[in-house]
Amino acid sequence: MKRIYLDYAAGIDNPSSIHAAGREAKAALESARAKIAKIISARPDEIIFTGSGTEANNLALNIAGHIVTTNIEHHSIMRPAQQRGASFVSVEPNGIVDPQKILAAIRPDTALVSVHYANNEIGVIQPIKVIAKTLHATRYTNRVLLHTDACQAAGFLNLNVQELGVDLMTLNASKIYGPNGIGCLFVRRGINIVPMIIGGDQERGRRAGTESVALATGFAEALAVASEQRPARRSGGKTNTEKLVKLRDWFIAQLPEARLNGDPIERLPNNINISFDDIDSEMLVLALDAHGICVSTGAACTTSSNEPSHVLQAISPPTPSYDKRGNIRITLGRSTTKKDLEYTLKILKKEIASALTRNRT
Amino acid sequence: MKRIYLDYAAGIDNPSSIHAAGREAKAALESARAKIAKIISARPDEIIFTGSGTEANNLALNIAGHIVTTNIEHHSIMRPAQQRGASFVSVEPNGIVDPQKILAAIRPDTALVSVHYANNEIGVIQPIKVIAKTLHATRYTNRVLLHTDACQAAGFLNLNVQELGVDLMTLNASKIYGPNGIGCLFVRRGINIVPMIIGGDQERGRRAGTESVALATGFAEALAVASEQRPARRSGGKTNTEKLVKLRDWFIAQLPEARLNGDPIERLPNNINISFDDIDSEMLVLALDAHGICVSTGAACTTSSNEPSHVLQAISPPTPSYDKRGNIRITLGRSTTKKDLEYTLKILKKEIASALTRNRT
Repeated sequence: MKRIYLDYAAGIDNPSSIHAAGREAKAALESARAKIAKIISARPDEIIFTGSGTEANNLALNIAGHIVTTNIEHHSIMRPAQQRGASFVSVEPNGIVDPQKILAAIRPDTALVSVHYANNEIGVIQPIKVIAKTLHATRYTNRVLLHTDACQAAGFLNLNVQELGVDLMTLNASKIYGPNGIGCLFVRRGINIVPMIIGGDQERGRRAGTESVALATGFAEALAVASEQRPARRSGGKTNTEKLVKLRDWFIAQLPEARLNGDPIERLPNNINISFDDIDSEMLVLALDAHGICVSTGAACTTSSNEPSHVLQAISPPTPSYDKRGNIRITLGRSTTKKDLEYTLKILKKEIASALTRNRT
Repeated sequence: MKRIYLDYAAGIDNPSSIHAAGREAKAALESARAKIAKIISARPDEIIFTGSGTEANNLALNIAGHIVTTNIEHHSIMRPAQQRGASFVSVEPNGIVDPQKILAAIRPDTALVSVHYANNEIGVIQPIKVIAKTLHATRYTNRVLLHTDACQAAGFLNLNVQELGVDLMTLNASKIYGPNGIGCLFVRRGINIVPMIIGGDQERGRRAGTESVALATGFAEALAVASEQRPARRSGGKTNTEKLVKLRDWFIAQLPEARLNGDPIERLPNNINISFDDIDSEMLVLALDAHGICVSTGAACTTSSNEPSHVLQAISPPTPSYDKRGNIRITLGRSTTKKDLEYTLKILKKEIASALTRNRT
């Protein structure tokens, strides 16, 4: 049957339209939602699509009551938490938070604990399961919700919300080779989330605005691919994750003069965050850039602010040489080869030698 | 020069990254922003990208002080306005608001007037220029800001913010054949907008979250095409707009038994919103759908709520037959042909005849 589309005011591909074209868009959207839900062991109605991981993080914190979080969260947690008068638990020098310190920060009016799964700058992995068990084993059971920002973890770690024991979880697509412009928040059934963006009844009234079927589909597909590439130790197969761990550790071993920021074991397979004493890291990043090598100092989200990284400050208290030192973040991807890293090392070592020579003269 | 990308934690295509790949993404984003700004006669730094028109509308209303709006706005204005205790000015029976009634609703503490440019259900065009002049000519000059939601207007009407005299304007991409998942808010320089989504420093600190270069580029291109297709009477050329006005008026004339909702002249070129006495419009919509014809009852955003349209209620007070009657919204697009409409009319007339026969028996 020929289709005649006469609903342009709704836009093409609007999942809220009741006609055949709208129902097809809705089916594709719900298929993407179901796919994501299955990967994280949730129900489809527990997934709220958002415009970004940032929006999902903001939404998770949009609840009444006291919040406990750490001092190395992403800014999309840090800033709303600051506005809300949250308690910030300091991480240990390796970047990992002590679950007992989280517990100690809980007050009678605490409604939410929010701890990211893996850090975006130094890649350390937080003990989410232990935090969940610690919370559940106390008198706070069923009263304090646990949220985790899993954006950086999504490509590498177990996302099963039942096994993790989390009540809310943030994911986004762009960190796992999916499109920019979409994220989601898992919200365990029974939790009342207060919408931030209001208007239409999309996402069961929890986030207004026409959903993008294309972005949701790309997001679900990206998560499915990431999920397949996660380690499967039993099979003995060599996964992308295992390849990256080897490359990462080999690269770090080639730079004995570098200080690795964050725990060397409990860190993402792709994260190398290093500092050099008495060498300005930003200069090194620019030198690498001049050779076509794209690496970062700290997080991209706040590079325009020129503030020293709150994460680096949290794990290594400021010293006279701190501001000068800074850090380089090198994060590997699926297509990264040893050859790429060899070339990177060559340039890096040359620049370090020049810098040290300049320092001596 | 070969590029080695080692910044996967930031995601590929992140405009906030300082390396070459990030600078390219940034350049593409700023090019899209500049293109949109030029079309609406604004400066690039007056454009804030958002995840939707809904988010941009919410953001526009996120200011301190009293708000004046109309009673037929989109829900993304209605609902935040209700939460904020806004004054709702009733439109006239033709769906158009009287600028003097807007003025009369201004209080000493009024900070913002928000009137949509064109209605999403009945397509009536509001006298934005007159409202702007009325506000500027009074003692409220420079004190009461004027916002307009131009999402439905963007495909057809003059978007020059200087000529319109607006301080804030919402646009989105999906209503003009662009992608879902992106909108923007024009905010005149000097106006302090309170961010809703916070975290990173994107969009000059006014909307956190990594911007989608792909969506922004698609948005700018869609707006450019829409802008080119707007009427240019001087050239004597036959634009898409003129074609649609003819088709629209011809279609309406073929249905003398229909009541046209909203002003027949001051309405979008593509909007036909009609009601039939004693005929359930939803039944007609479903009958058309069974023939592959996609039309709507009211707005898609709230079709799941089953509430009667607040717009139709505002222009035609509820009667005993109101709930039964409802309305059909037929909105034409670039590819709509007279043949499509002839077929639609054929099915519609047949269904109306059947319904009337059923009513009589």
